Amino acid sequence: MSPALLPRTGIGTDVHAFDTDPARELWVGGLHWPGETGLAGHSDGDVAAHAAADALFSASGLGDLGSNFGISEPEWAGARGTALLAEAARRVRAAGFEIGNVAVQVIGNRPRLGPRRAEAQATLSEAAGAVVTLTATTTDGLGLTGRGEGLAALATALVVPVPPPGGPSDEPGAAG
Amino acid sequence: MSPALLPRTGIGTDVHAFDTDPARELWVGGLHWPGETGLAGHSDGDVAAHAAADALFSASGLGDLGSNFGISEPEWAGARGTALLAEAARRVRAAGFEIGNVAVQVIGNRPRLGPRRAEAQATLSEAAGAVVTLTATTTDGLGLTGRGEGLAALATALVVPVPPPGGPSDEPGAAG
Amino acid sequence: MSPALLPRTGIGTDVHAFDTDPARELWVGGLHWPGETGLAGHSDGDVAAHAAADALFSASGLGDLGSNFGISEPEWAGARGTALLAEAARRVRAAGFEIGNVAVQVIGNRPRLGPRRAEAQATLSEAAGAVVTLTATTTDGLGLTGRGEGLAALATALVVPVPPPGGPSDEPGAAG
Repeated sequence: MSPALLPRTGIGTDVHAFDTDPARELWVGGLHWPGETGLAGHSDGDVAAHAAADALFSASGLGDLGSNFGISEPEWAGARGTALLAEAARRVRAAGFEIGNVAVQVIGNRPRLGPRRAEAQATLSEAAGAVVTLTATTTDGLGLTGRGEGLAALATALVVPVPPPGGPSDEPGAAG
Repeated sequence: MSPALLPRTGIGTDVHAFDTDPARELWVGGLHWPGETGLAGHSDGDVAAHAAADALFSASGLGDLGSNFGISEPEWAGARGTALLAEAARRVRAAGFEIGNVAVQVIGNRPRLGPRRAEAQATLSEAAGAVVTLTATTTDGLGLTGRGEGLAALATALVVPVPPPGGPSDEPGAAG
Repeated sequence: MSPALLPRTGIGTDVHAFDTDPARELWVGGLHWPGETGLAGHSDGDVAAHAAADALFSASGLGDLGSNFGISEPEWAGARGTALLAEAARRVRAAGFEIGNVAVQVIGNRPRLGPRRAEAQATLSEAAGAVVTLTATTTDGLGLTGRGEGLAALATALVVPVPPPGGPSDEPGAAG
């Protein structure tokens, strides 16, 4: 297999602090979690969607969340995490990659993701247009998530370069 | 290649605190480490085996350690980490995936994994029925592992969907 | 596809504390960052290059940074991160793997990588002889990187075993 056509792996991490305003809504995994305190930040703080988008950018070499949705593109400042994920997936495909899958793990004490895993996975997968899996763990009371200061997420993604039309795989006789 | 048959990547993290009972046995990477204080928890606290199992679940969309071996299946509560890894691998294969490999990195000050790396890799690989690699690093005295509060592990896994018998790849004439 | 020839994924983390000596040079992503305080350690503390090298070792089962460039090989003690990455890539290829890609995410408050991303990616990619992508994020003031104690990097890599000359893929008639 040509090195250029091998699958590529990417990685993304995101951390947000819990907001001091108890009325702030919590959004994680593309879902609203009623009764839970939200995460701070200009965006909705959805660490799962953000880590997933960053893993896609990481795999395809298109920069990161900050360079894609940062100061230069203020229209994304308050966007929902799933909107960022959908736009990230669109940009990755526009750059010539097929998306294999994205796997996200949320690290923290709350919310309890298990009971709503299927709903969150369906929401994230619809946004990305590809399989997104969601898992969760805790850290035994240790570290920033164990002390309840914030929520973290780790993601990995796999993308595959699509051979350009008229490229070697379409024209076997062309110079490779 | 059909998107459905692309390899899938997964991610898993696990953190356990060191136990306050100095007589607690330490189990990491499927091995017993005599003379080292153990990790707290109902299980044996083997962060390497747990992260590996969670990465396999993450890649294949089968939930996570908590949903697979949690409250609903109490028979796994005190199980050895390698037993959980073996059962995770069995469930992943039963769901229609081939396991490519699992890579685990242990983060912490002790034990020193290097001298027993080959033994640990062989033990984890036998449990998973696939190549499991084990590496280790420290964090320069920083964070929960640097302060010696606990041990962490990060893992990534690659699985590949197996075409179902009678599916497109077996019956080229069938509607895909 | 034979399991032995599936791509393999690997993971690598690295953390270094900022040096107390303000004159210490900062090296991250293979670049010198004038005016920024450096990272402590015997090496140049380039967490991005170190995590990338460790992810390559992790994917290919060749040990880790410590076992490859540690006490037993003192000639590497003060080596530049890109020199370690280049040597890691050489060892991975010599062991029979093709390198697909490496993706690195730097986690911390400074330096601001975005403006020099292209330069850093070119430097790391040249060292590895393969595509290395570089992204960055912060942790909302939390944890060891949020408090400015140090800099962290997470990396994932994909490698593919190369069929040996004279092996099954070269001699279709040979017993597989």
